[in-house]
Amino acid sequence: MPKKIRLGILGGGGDSLIGIVHRIASFMNDNYSIVGGVFNPDPAISIEFAKEIDIPTNRIYATVEELVAKENALPGEERMQVISVLTPNFLHFPMAKALLEGGFNVICEKPMTTTYEEAKILADLQQKSGAVFALTHTYTGYPMVRQMREMIRAGAIGAVHKVDAQYYQGWINPLIHDEKSRKATWRLDPAKSGISCCIGDIGVHAFNLLEYTCGLEVRELLSDFNFLYDDNVMDVDGTVLVRMDKHVKGVIRASQIATAEENNISIAVYGRKGGLKWEQENPNYLYLLEEGKPLQVLKPGHAYNSDMAKDATKLPPGHPEGIFDAMANIYLGVAKAIRGEKIHQGEYPTVRDGVRGMNFIEATVESNQKGNVWVTLNHD
Amino acid sequence: MPKKIRLGILGGGGDSLIGIVHRIASFMNDNYSIVGGVFNPDPAISIEFAKEIDIPTNRIYATVEELVAKENALPGEERMQVISVLTPNFLHFPMAKALLEGGFNVICEKPMTTTYEEAKILADLQQKSGAVFALTHTYTGYPMVRQMREMIRAGAIGAVHKVDAQYYQGWINPLIHDEKSRKATWRLDPAKSGISCCIGDIGVHAFNLLEYTCGLEVRELLSDFNFLYDDNVMDVDGTVLVRMDKHVKGVIRASQIATAEENNISIAVYGRKGGLKWEQENPNYLYLLEEGKPLQVLKPGHAYNSDMAKDATKLPPGHPEGIFDAMANIYLGVAKAIRGEKIHQGEYPTVRDGVRGMNFIEATVESNQKGNVWVTLNHD
Amino acid sequence: MPKKIRLGILGGGGDSLIGIVHRIASFMNDNYSIVGGVFNPDPAISIEFAKEIDIPTNRIYATVEELVAKENALPGEERMQVISVLTPNFLHFPMAKALLEGGFNVICEKPMTTTYEEAKILADLQQKSGAVFALTHTYTGYPMVRQMREMIRAGAIGAVHKVDAQYYQGWINPLIHDEKSRKATWRLDPAKSGISCCIGDIGVHAFNLLEYTCGLEVRELLSDFNFLYDDNVMDVDGTVLVRMDKHVKGVIRASQIATAEENNISIAVYGRKGGLKWEQENPNYLYLLEEGKPLQVLKPGHAYNSDMAKDATKLPPGHPEGIFDAMANIYLGVAKAIRGEKIHQGEYPTVRDGVRGMNFIEATVESNQKGNVWVTLNHD
Amino acid sequence: MPKKIRLGILGGGGDSLIGIVHRIASFMNDNYSIVGGVFNPDPAISIEFAKEIDIPTNRIYATVEELVAKENALPGEERMQVISVLTPNFLHFPMAKALLEGGFNVICEKPMTTTYEEAKILADLQQKSGAVFALTHTYTGYPMVRQMREMIRAGAIGAVHKVDAQYYQGWINPLIHDEKSRKATWRLDPAKSGISCCIGDIGVHAFNLLEYTCGLEVRELLSDFNFLYDDNVMDVDGTVLVRMDKHVKGVIRASQIATAEENNISIAVYGRKGGLKWEQENPNYLYLLEEGKPLQVLKPGHAYNSDMAKDATKLPPGHPEGIFDAMANIYLGVAKAIRGEKIHQGEYPTVRDGVRGMNFIEATVESNQKGNVWVTLNHD
Repeated sequence: MPKKIRLGILGGGGDSLIGIVHRIASFMNDNYSIVGGVFNPDPAISIEFAKEIDIPTNRIYATVEELVAKENALPGEERMQVISVLTPNFLHFPMAKALLEGGFNVICEKPMTTTYEEAKILADLQQKSGAVFALTHTYTGYPMVRQMREMIRAGAIGAVHKVDAQYYQGWINPLIHDEKSRKATWRLDPAKSGISCCIGDIGVHAFNLLEYTCGLEVRELLSDFNFLYDDNVMDVDGTVLVRMDKHVKGVIRASQIATAEENNISIAVYGRKGGLKWEQENPNYLYLLEEGKPLQVLKPGHAYNSDMAKDATKLPPGHPEGIFDAMANIYLGVAKAIRGEKIHQGEYPTVRDGVRGMNFIEATVESNQKGNVWVTLNHD
Repeated sequence: MPKKIRLGILGGGGDSLIGIVHRIASFMNDNYSIVGGVFNPDPAISIEFAKEIDIPTNRIYATVEELVAKENALPGEERMQVISVLTPNFLHFPMAKALLEGGFNVICEKPMTTTYEEAKILADLQQKSGAVFALTHTYTGYPMVRQMREMIRAGAIGAVHKVDAQYYQGWINPLIHDEKSRKATWRLDPAKSGISCCIGDIGVHAFNLLEYTCGLEVRELLSDFNFLYDDNVMDVDGTVLVRMDKHVKGVIRASQIATAEENNISIAVYGRKGGLKWEQENPNYLYLLEEGKPLQVLKPGHAYNSDMAKDATKLPPGHPEGIFDAMANIYLGVAKAIRGEKIHQGEYPTVRDGVRGMNFIEATVESNQKGNVWVTLNHD
Repeated sequence: MPKKIRLGILGGGGDSLIGIVHRIASFMNDNYSIVGGVFNPDPAISIEFAKEIDIPTNRIYATVEELVAKENALPGEERMQVISVLTPNFLHFPMAKALLEGGFNVICEKPMTTTYEEAKILADLQQKSGAVFALTHTYTGYPMVRQMREMIRAGAIGAVHKVDAQYYQGWINPLIHDEKSRKATWRLDPAKSGISCCIGDIGVHAFNLLEYTCGLEVRELLSDFNFLYDDNVMDVDGTVLVRMDKHVKGVIRASQIATAEENNISIAVYGRKGGLKWEQENPNYLYLLEEGKPLQVLKPGHAYNSDMAKDATKLPPGHPEGIFDAMANIYLGVAKAIRGEKIHQGEYPTVRDGVRGMNFIEATVESNQKGNVWVTLNHD
Repeated sequence: MPKKIRLGILGGGGDSLIGIVHRIASFMNDNYSIVGGVFNPDPAISIEFAKEIDIPTNRIYATVEELVAKENALPGEERMQVISVLTPNFLHFPMAKALLEGGFNVICEKPMTTTYEEAKILADLQQKSGAVFALTHTYTGYPMVRQMREMIRAGAIGAVHKVDAQYYQGWINPLIHDEKSRKATWRLDPAKSGISCCIGDIGVHAFNLLEYTCGLEVRELLSDFNFLYDDNVMDVDGTVLVRMDKHVKGVIRASQIATAEENNISIAVYGRKGGLKWEQENPNYLYLLEEGKPLQVLKPGHAYNSDMAKDATKLPPGHPEGIFDAMANIYLGVAKAIRGEKIHQGEYPTVRDGVRGMNFIEATVESNQKGNVWVTLNHD
């Protein structure tokens, strides 16, 4: 087995939840060593954090620019091989850009950028450099999501003709109904949060799962947002009618006012021969519906799964793996790609997923603003 | 306890499934005696069937007109008190009309009529005569649907702000993809089946459940149909964006190409304080979601339920009741109404539910035909 | 279709729950007409009840002896063809005995008798007369229980090697912990309730389901009862180790102190090739486990089911049927048997099931009393 | 935050599954650095593995004795603070003994020893040295198992009166029925696997969960094993009647021939006021049953949980954590204990759990051998 990959991290210090998720994901398959980064804009805090997580402090930098310069000055066999970008959303673009321009591989948290235009810039840079660029649409890392994709590709349900994806949460409910709270929340402030709240934060995950599992792209959409209050300009709920390749129709439903829902993502895809359904809160079940046959429930760790699903499981059947494991599977795909090993198509989400996501978000905003009309997505 | 109510039946003879459902529903609470009717257009067959189900043959009539005339000639204490209309869809309107004009109470199968205009005519007739008129939207008979309605009315989840109703089936899938079959199916022939297939047959149930449980009405809608093939003019799938009273937004999703789905109806209603969810294929569970509390699962037969839900259960908790029991609860409400007993609001669906349903169906067709635009419903 | 079968009923008047269940069951498939009986020891009350449920009063009798005498005096084509015994438990035996001796077919509520000796007397009488005798072990009427039986018979899971049946309720919990209540409850008084409470009332159902589905008999058992209090002599909980034919081992678990459980019956049978599991509170699912294959969930109404399971369903898939339908399926089997039609083996539980059940109950009491030793069952 | 704890590992090299589980568990909360150990009896392989997982090779030792000697020669601030024992089962005892005698804290894989006598020796050593000693009964690390324990301790279900624990797997089924395979499997060879297969490997987990959640101890038991074949001397299935403190009765059921079951552990505990149920394959749900109330489903990450359950979750509600997280929670408890921080009672299983487990295993074997008689456990 090759030596561990040298990983740098931007952001994710202190008690950052996303920092924990990425560190665990990097450890899980023994593929990465964290060698440095910029954990905090304040170098002293950054160094303190490096000590806490027990890594050397000599490669803790003050800025991404310093990181790029100094790492590039190191010999190739010492240089960071990939850098994870876990900073606040508005910094994803400039940091990822600097890294790509500096010749580095990148793992970027979602959202990749704040605009579609920025996303296309990153895509261009990635294409020029040929760097590995992974966008952490974590849910694509679940083994049964991968199995769903592979079964659809293999024709298990025939030609797809109907899709339905849901992402329901309720967390914004207590904030939105209180005037002070809804004005104070950064999530509902477009200056801080971008042009969309609900679709931008979670609807895009449902969109991504749909394209990921079906292997089809959304061509047109019509969206209807709910703002609940006149003094609120950010969507807290949105339903999106979609038309995909090959005349497939469907709907994407997202909400942050589905009161007391936790993280209720589900996706259903129906084809001529059968249907497949998956739910994130019970991620280890994949439901296969076939006419005239018993309902089948597929689970991880079995030989009947596709290679990509099997590679995404570490233990025998019956030992539940969860969200950290999903993220770890994306890191595993990146590690393989960096080492030049053979990877499965779809083993990690790419810069193109980011471009499509930003296109989707902007199109839903446009459709809703224009009075719920059809808007066409590009095919970048 | 009063004597049994004298029930007549139009249609439902032979092996008719709907005939079985109504007979069982009428028997279940010992409230009705079937005394006659028109089981078949052919009087001989009708009489034969009467013998089979062991009822007297002297009140088997050739037509609804004969029934109305001869029953009205009987003394009041012998006359049929209510007639169930179970004939093919296009006959519901003329038969119900004749019965209302003849002064009879009516239990009418769904769809109540083939047009919104007809529906309004029945509503006018019912209002004039003051007859009991029940439309058998069976799913409203489930105890936990009734509990959901009563809890929302009592404020258990606060002001409703988001709704989502689904009715997914897959039965038309094998027919629609075969050119011969899709041309031969009466369901896809507007002359026989009316202006809508999927929304008319099942979408309207989801619509009804939404208005029934929320106590709110849909004011505007925007629909998107799927016909799958250019040579098919009837919807086999439709998604409908809805705006209800009090600025509530939501979505109704119906499909007959959700391959291998059986009768997958679900309804979710979210309010400021909580959410309620119900699924038809497991009808004895009602899910209550409240922020910061464990998920609660309510079941029939418990003292914590509302009176209307309690009255809709015959056995102690843990003894599953099903679809026949749901229909029987509607018959029970009708029996109480005929006897002039106190009934719960919503104990049976009325002619007004039929009017609204037909308005809904026609509006979805109009919205789709005009290019997915908003269409306003009336408030009859 | 032949004319309806003439049914008499003993007991089950007033608001009797079991009376409702049997009346509904008899109506459900249009096979029976209730023509008379003894609804109450007081003939006046009995006649009043006959009026309420709208049946003629001329065949309401004062006693079972009068019924036997007068019905036998009627011409064959008018005489009751079968009588349901729904009286208090201690009357089942004398009444069933009188009916068998009078030459009648019998449907008998559970428990069939209060002792094993009595049970064998009924079995002898039934064998002599050749009468149809059905014991209403209701749960065997569920379509998916029947499917489980048929699949095991057909070898779907190979030779059975391990069984586990559970019947957990919690209803006695609030009574047992209160000294006054536990002394006042007739269920805990052996004079009224027989030698066993928990095993006698519900454990025997689990035992019956095990023998029914496996097609194997329990040969030996070792039981451990829980009485909870020294002043209580009746079991409120019991675990029974069983050894069946062909060296199959397993366990039967029953409890009335499984606090807040409703009617939680489950049965799991494992064979060399696979396993089958069923749960009463979700009776329309049958789980098939096979090594190296996805879990399969079978449901009623599908062509893949056995004939006996298919005959036990009235509606297409997705329309839940429940406990009344289960009982109705037993009545359906009896109707076929009375008419001399071909029936499936196992379409209704027989007097032999009653004999075995009483043997089981007495053996568990003996095993527990003797200090949890193995006790052998007979093979009558 | 203090610096990371220096961890050594015995065994777990190469593709060892248990090695992966422990490494991930040690990383997950940023508490440990692996500094050396004995990954393999062959030092060259051991060093190769150290390189693979990117740790220094200077503290890779040939034997546990060498480790003890050389680590003790290091200054206190460099010395290993805890050593995980992941070697084959028969080595757990001698290695753990050597470590305790050498003054080290120990994390020991299950089974702790091969006999009850050995277990008591370790317990004595641990008591003398005062070392932290954790036995990795992984399932106690799940947040909802901890919540179950804490609720029972807090009286949420009142005094416990009935327990039922199950551990069903099917993996041995294809081996046991083939004569060659069953003779070749080390699991069925007492020389390699100890005196019990099914109870020793998995039944003891169910036993441990019972004592852990209830806070009660098993005092007496009666077991019935199934060997299936005369030429097999190791149990592949066993049912154990138990009598716990305070007259609580119950049953432990374990099987390796529950065909096609994966890792189906469930535990149900009923008290005077309510019941609690948990299932390992859906570990993030805890079911609370209370008389006259809706069923409640508790989930991780909520404020309503106990502190110990809250400390065992890293993410907000709705993000499933799994088996690695459970193990990581045990490592977290050990880290706190080593640092002398305040820990919750039950935050990691101790040497005493190992003593009780071995007592349980030997008692079940004795009970079965003597003909299913009651055997008393000690109260060490």
